[in-house]
Amino acid sequence: MEATYRALCTHGYADLTIQAIADEFEKSKSLLYYHYETKDDLLLDFLDWLLERWKDELREDEADDVESFVDGILPRELGEEREEFRAAIVEIRAQAASKPAYRERFTRSDDLFRGVLVERIEAGVDRGAYRDVAPEATADLLMSVIDGAMLRRATTDADVMGNTRDGVDVYVARVLRGEQ
Amino acid sequence: MEATYRALCTHGYADLTIQAIADEFEKSKSLLYYHYETKDDLLLDFLDWLLERWKDELREDEADDVESFVDGILPRELGEEREEFRAAIVEIRAQAASKPAYRERFTRSDDLFRGVLVERIEAGVDRGAYRDVAPEATADLLMSVIDGAMLRRATTDADVMGNTRDGVDVYVARVLRGEQ
Repeated sequence: MEATYRALCTHGYADLTIQAIADEFEKSKSLLYYHYETKDDLLLDFLDWLLERWKDELREDEADDVESFVDGILPRELGEEREEFRAAIVEIRAQAASKPAYRERFTRSDDLFRGVLVERIEAGVDRGAYRDVAPEATADLLMSVIDGAMLRRATTDADVMGNTRDGVDVYVARVLRGEQ
Repeated sequence: MEATYRALCTHGYADLTIQAIADEFEKSKSLLYYHYETKDDLLLDFLDWLLERWKDELREDEADDVESFVDGILPRELGEEREEFRAAIVEIRAQAASKPAYRERFTRSDDLFRGVLVERIEAGVDRGAYRDVAPEATADLLMSVIDGAMLRRATTDADVMGNTRDGVDVYVARVLRGEQ
């Protein structure tokens, strides 16, 4: 799975081959060919692995506010490796428009992150840090901003991250925290 | 170009072939094969045509507020044809992560729509309809929400449109119009 991660950062999805992943794999290459017939078989397992890693990270995260969630997932600068990886994820994600097995994985990851956002918004409202907003609509707006910034960053030369993050910070301050 | 539109709605990008477009084409099919060697050649021309159509539509649009822009581009229900077409566009857009010719087209369309939003925000601030917000950050947040809702709708089973639109309406009311 880590070899797949490295191969995706280097090659992206379109140019990815099982051979490219095997080249990053320190153990037996024949083992890889034995387990996976196609690139898709391997990538579906990779998405399952990634989802478990994200679940573990979220479980270990002691923060329960929206601000730190946004800091983690929508930083102003991504860094080269994370940027390459996100571009590859956008390519893989587009497969979900026509392939049900991919769609099922991206539906689960959307549920996971959206669920965490709903919980954090409700917790913030309960402790009086946020105004009495609708948790579902707020979480969906934030999920769409996060995914849209990723899509625009990966597929255009537009200067997306800093401005979008400025917009989100204003949204969180005015709509959630009720600042003027 | 209209044959390409219909073929994309029916087949999506992954299963699209020049033959499928030719099947939708009323005129000489050999003409199509004469002009385009590959699916990519044809789709790049299609994206240019689409961009000109969008420019014309925006030029003819007499509205100059953010609310009607959002109504047009992020309705609560898309309808089957528009939904199929947007799913195909998400697949085509993912090509821009690795292919410069696609990237150039999606950068131009991002510039176009973002530019219209910046103008409308500035116009609203000038006539006192909106608070004195930062036009760039506001436009980028809205562009990311719109593209993210499209990506999530096309690649997950999540119920995206209604909730995201509720979130955007609250954003426009509280952040732009300054309502409480």
